[in-house]
Amino acid sequence: MIVVMKDNAREQDINKVIARIKELGYTPHPSQGVEKMIIGIIGIHNREELIESLGAYQGIDKMIPIMEPYKLAGRTFKNENTTIKIGDKVTIGGQNIVLIAGPCAIESEEQVISTARAVKAGGAQILRGGAFKPRTSPYSFQGLQEEGLKMMKRAAAATDLQVITEVVDPRDVELVGKYADIYQIGARNMQNFLLLRELGKTKKPVMLKRGPSATYEEFLMAAEYIMSEGNYNVILCERGIRTFEGYTRNTLDLVSIPVLKKLSHLPVVVDPSHGTGKWDLVEPAAKGAVAMDADGLMIEVHPEPYKALSDGQQSLKFDKFNEMVTQLRAIATTVGRGL
Amino acid sequence: MIVVMKDNAREQDINKVIARIKELGYTPHPSQGVEKMIIGIIGIHNREELIESLGAYQGIDKMIPIMEPYKLAGRTFKNENTTIKIGDKVTIGGQNIVLIAGPCAIESEEQVISTARAVKAGGAQILRGGAFKPRTSPYSFQGLQEEGLKMMKRAAAATDLQVITEVVDPRDVELVGKYADIYQIGARNMQNFLLLRELGKTKKPVMLKRGPSATYEEFLMAAEYIMSEGNYNVILCERGIRTFEGYTRNTLDLVSIPVLKKLSHLPVVVDPSHGTGKWDLVEPAAKGAVAMDADGLMIEVHPEPYKALSDGQQSLKFDKFNEMVTQLRAIATTVGRGL
Amino acid sequence: MIVVMKDNAREQDINKVIARIKELGYTPHPSQGVEKMIIGIIGIHNREELIESLGAYQGIDKMIPIMEPYKLAGRTFKNENTTIKIGDKVTIGGQNIVLIAGPCAIESEEQVISTARAVKAGGAQILRGGAFKPRTSPYSFQGLQEEGLKMMKRAAAATDLQVITEVVDPRDVELVGKYADIYQIGARNMQNFLLLRELGKTKKPVMLKRGPSATYEEFLMAAEYIMSEGNYNVILCERGIRTFEGYTRNTLDLVSIPVLKKLSHLPVVVDPSHGTGKWDLVEPAAKGAVAMDADGLMIEVHPEPYKALSDGQQSLKFDKFNEMVTQLRAIATTVGRGL
Amino acid sequence: MIVVMKDNAREQDINKVIARIKELGYTPHPSQGVEKMIIGIIGIHNREELIESLGAYQGIDKMIPIMEPYKLAGRTFKNENTTIKIGDKVTIGGQNIVLIAGPCAIESEEQVISTARAVKAGGAQILRGGAFKPRTSPYSFQGLQEEGLKMMKRAAAATDLQVITEVVDPRDVELVGKYADIYQIGARNMQNFLLLRELGKTKKPVMLKRGPSATYEEFLMAAEYIMSEGNYNVILCERGIRTFEGYTRNTLDLVSIPVLKKLSHLPVVVDPSHGTGKWDLVEPAAKGAVAMDADGLMIEVHPEPYKALSDGQQSLKFDKFNEMVTQLRAIATTVGRGL
Repeated sequence: MIVVMKDNAREQDINKVIARIKELGYTPHPSQGVEKMIIGIIGIHNREELIESLGAYQGIDKMIPIMEPYKLAGRTFKNENTTIKIGDKVTIGGQNIVLIAGPCAIESEEQVISTARAVKAGGAQILRGGAFKPRTSPYSFQGLQEEGLKMMKRAAAATDLQVITEVVDPRDVELVGKYADIYQIGARNMQNFLLLRELGKTKKPVMLKRGPSATYEEFLMAAEYIMSEGNYNVILCERGIRTFEGYTRNTLDLVSIPVLKKLSHLPVVVDPSHGTGKWDLVEPAAKGAVAMDADGLMIEVHPEPYKALSDGQQSLKFDKFNEMVTQLRAIATTVGRGL
Repeated sequence: MIVVMKDNAREQDINKVIARIKELGYTPHPSQGVEKMIIGIIGIHNREELIESLGAYQGIDKMIPIMEPYKLAGRTFKNENTTIKIGDKVTIGGQNIVLIAGPCAIESEEQVISTARAVKAGGAQILRGGAFKPRTSPYSFQGLQEEGLKMMKRAAAATDLQVITEVVDPRDVELVGKYADIYQIGARNMQNFLLLRELGKTKKPVMLKRGPSATYEEFLMAAEYIMSEGNYNVILCERGIRTFEGYTRNTLDLVSIPVLKKLSHLPVVVDPSHGTGKWDLVEPAAKGAVAMDADGLMIEVHPEPYKALSDGQQSLKFDKFNEMVTQLRAIATTVGRGL
Repeated sequence: MIVVMKDNAREQDINKVIARIKELGYTPHPSQGVEKMIIGIIGIHNREELIESLGAYQGIDKMIPIMEPYKLAGRTFKNENTTIKIGDKVTIGGQNIVLIAGPCAIESEEQVISTARAVKAGGAQILRGGAFKPRTSPYSFQGLQEEGLKMMKRAAAATDLQVITEVVDPRDVELVGKYADIYQIGARNMQNFLLLRELGKTKKPVMLKRGPSATYEEFLMAAEYIMSEGNYNVILCERGIRTFEGYTRNTLDLVSIPVLKKLSHLPVVVDPSHGTGKWDLVEPAAKGAVAMDADGLMIEVHPEPYKALSDGQQSLKFDKFNEMVTQLRAIATTVGRGL
Repeated sequence: MIVVMKDNAREQDINKVIARIKELGYTPHPSQGVEKMIIGIIGIHNREELIESLGAYQGIDKMIPIMEPYKLAGRTFKNENTTIKIGDKVTIGGQNIVLIAGPCAIESEEQVISTARAVKAGGAQILRGGAFKPRTSPYSFQGLQEEGLKMMKRAAAATDLQVITEVVDPRDVELVGKYADIYQIGARNMQNFLLLRELGKTKKPVMLKRGPSATYEEFLMAAEYIMSEGNYNVILCERGIRTFEGYTRNTLDLVSIPVLKKLSHLPVVVDPSHGTGKWDLVEPAAKGAVAMDADGLMIEVHPEPYKALSDGQQSLKFDKFNEMVTQLRAIATTVGRGL
């Protein structure tokens, strides 16, 4: 880290900062520039604490981190790509692009089984569906809870699909774990650190969605929370960020794919359904994601989107899903991936 | 709500939408414009569900809400300002502006008691302090937990202050409630709906911090979650939003004060410490907040900010806090408020 | 447009608004909801003026536009895609994806001719290069001006390429027009309305770059400025927007491609060089753009990026450009486009 | 500046970077950290060029500026506050807070003279009004141009006010200069560098509005453009930035006042009319600005806002303006300023 002193920093201010750095166990490397004195600190083990420990000192203009704050999630820690096995047949982060598909919310046995069959036929390997739904309005449908998980599990078993579903309450980790092959952490919970820790204590894969205002660094720090508890099976999911543009539900940041894969060894999945919020934009966004080397796609599919209790406007019908997958396969081939 | 049909919507598409609106229990009011057909719907009881129920219909261009989605939190429901009593002596939302002050994190008995004495002398009525700390890094100090709550309670009792502290885990609601007079929900948990619901089931006042990417509407919908469970004692706290400007920790949106007070009857508190992230900006931001009719201020104060384990760079020393309060008092008088 | 009256709007306020709407030449369509009175207005010829004409009336809560504010740029005005001929051989917006490539700034005869030859060989049809450079710092290289335009023209003639270059000063429109086949309007000038008007008076194609904080609607309104003067040859260029994420120079909004093509008949080009600001992200971003049906790509290429006077960090070397084009061709084929 | 090399940077990459730094005339200061090699460079005269000159080198991870890129606009260059004299009686940046008021657009002799009289009586010292209007829609009222300037000049002369008005076209600098005492550069033109340069060549004061997506640094760099041509009479104007919140026209960043005054010696004026876009938010925002030590306020006032051709919704009526000024005076006194 580089500590930049103010132009008018006094000798005594500089000395206090240097003393404090030593007290914290580091070796300060002061260096006088033309106008400013800067002090380098190397080998930092906790950047956040160091910044806060020095932040109140008089005479400091700013502190500039040099190193990434994440360790386990970064390429420096592990250079080769992480691949995550889900059951016997599914691998995320390998040569094949994995399709995760299903309804936004589990609504009925009939809905989930028909969707499971359709997406399986279309090429999906993992069934998605929400049983505990975080909703902006307290008056909206909140999910079928354990009943929904059971329906989902039966549908997955009948179609040989794996199950991914969201957990929102740390008290439900065990319950959800009975039915899910992958835990999902929703965007609004990306910095729900206690939930991250709870999932870190399990060994089950976790798909972590990017928060709507999370930088790449914060996203990877959230992954670090899970990993620091011993669970290295983390899948990153880009699902759009909040910007000034309100036409789409979010602004899908497809460039995050190559960036995250440069910074981290973890696999990156894209959710074009939430990322755009409009069903007719899902296909183009999915095509872009495949061309840009995403390791998976998460797509909302519903037998009758116009009757969906949640997110109907961004869900694909079965035939549309099938059509899309055909096109995605062609693109996948051109970038050396299977699908 | 106004449903706007596409220019090229077919007769049959329009009819399907109209039929669906009826099926959902509403009366559609179609109206043909020069280029577009629009359909009005009035008396909506759940906007989110209605939008999702119609969203997938072909021929719909967009749906435009007319009414605010919140009910209990809005001025339509209750026109007079809400005032919230904390113990015998403190009222938030009344004529007096309330000062909430204390360290970011509870670190030791000595630290909290000295700070409590100082802020009490300076005019604070409520002691703040974190015992469960949500931290960006898993390797940072995470708080003293119940031990910290006890220290805080003792310090508050000794100085006749009320206690506000953050709860992050739904399993800790009861525990924290034993020590806190006001629950705080942190910005990252603004849409942690299950936590909102849990606190809605208590009767204890809740201070809800605005999420870094939350619109006014989403902020009020989060308050609605708490209120919909029966707890109407909600205090809104503006603490800055995330924008492209990185010089300050957040962009403090002081105009939110008059906006929130126009839309809602709930009191509005401002946190200039997190809102700016720099101690030398706390005073100007606090002055602006008082001039703009905030109902309270939440300020980080620390006996030795340069030794703080958390947020030292945005904490005020005791004498600086006192100086600031003197100036705030003068401004408060000019806008007809006490402090 | 829908005028929404406040809950507590008085009879006389409503009547004044209705009278004003009539005075402005429209027919008001009042409609009483459960809680709010709304007034519809159809056939609006100038939305901005109408909003401002009504905005100060008491009792109005908000005004909600139904129609898009642009006319000539929209699909309602013209449903088929616009194709723009540049010289005899180049068409933008047709079946072929057009490659625009060259250095950020024209630096020397040698630099521009070698780059022109390389990009021509690689498949480019249009040569880009800046002679008038808008720079954040007044102390940076500002471009070779007319001398640069001449070098560019000679290089283009020698390689049978078309020329695109930026014009920043309305006084230079004629001068730049002597050398350019396409005028470029930079992102910072997207709402430089007088420059838009000047270019609207020419018949020469104009490539309009999206401003860093421009919504889709504002972007199309800027195109409307050019078109309203009679020049319909407008090419839209997505080059990233400003968000809270600072790792990349901008956040490239690839989903803008399908959105803009849905709303407008104008062709859409993507600039992954400025959109990402890092040369190693240019190729993945370009792949995404092709998969998502962009009509063209604008790529910065430099013989020796590490010696470039401008934007070296986002420029490709010749061999890297060639490699990339090979990969883009494969993707283009899968989406039914030539390149 | 600190050049951070990648973890896997090769010896030869590092040597090339060091050689290039020397070639550019600087002395490199390499320093090996635990994981990364960093290279310090001091005494940089053009940061933008240096970054671009090094940006393409292999092995560089990132480049981190230490110094501010502006010189003349910064406190390092000049520590005491700049005060700007407008005519004999008005000073911006001194002990008094200056009120700038008037209509958004000049519409008629009657409108401008009645407004001038009203705002003069209310305490304004400078009359604002637009004669050349940049409008989002090409179909909106574009201003009375020179006719408007003449009306404004007559009204100002009759009431002993100074005149501020926007210039949008570099060809109009001389014309506008005949009537204006202060040139205004609108937010959309903040990075219209050629216009900045033209005004830099005059000696007349320039009020520069912050662009909607401009960082503090970019804002000060735009001021630097004007100053680098020799005109040091620059006034900064905060008028809101673009964020995800659409309820207000912009998000007024009041904390920019203390930040800009910390970084720069230039005076800072706030425009709460454009900053909020709603007349009932103008007064609270203006109060905040005064409490936070703004050097001036720019307020839209109109005799009949509901008949305004532009911005009626954010304009104050005469009596409301007077009322507001009375309240602002009381706050100004508490912060040691006159008004």
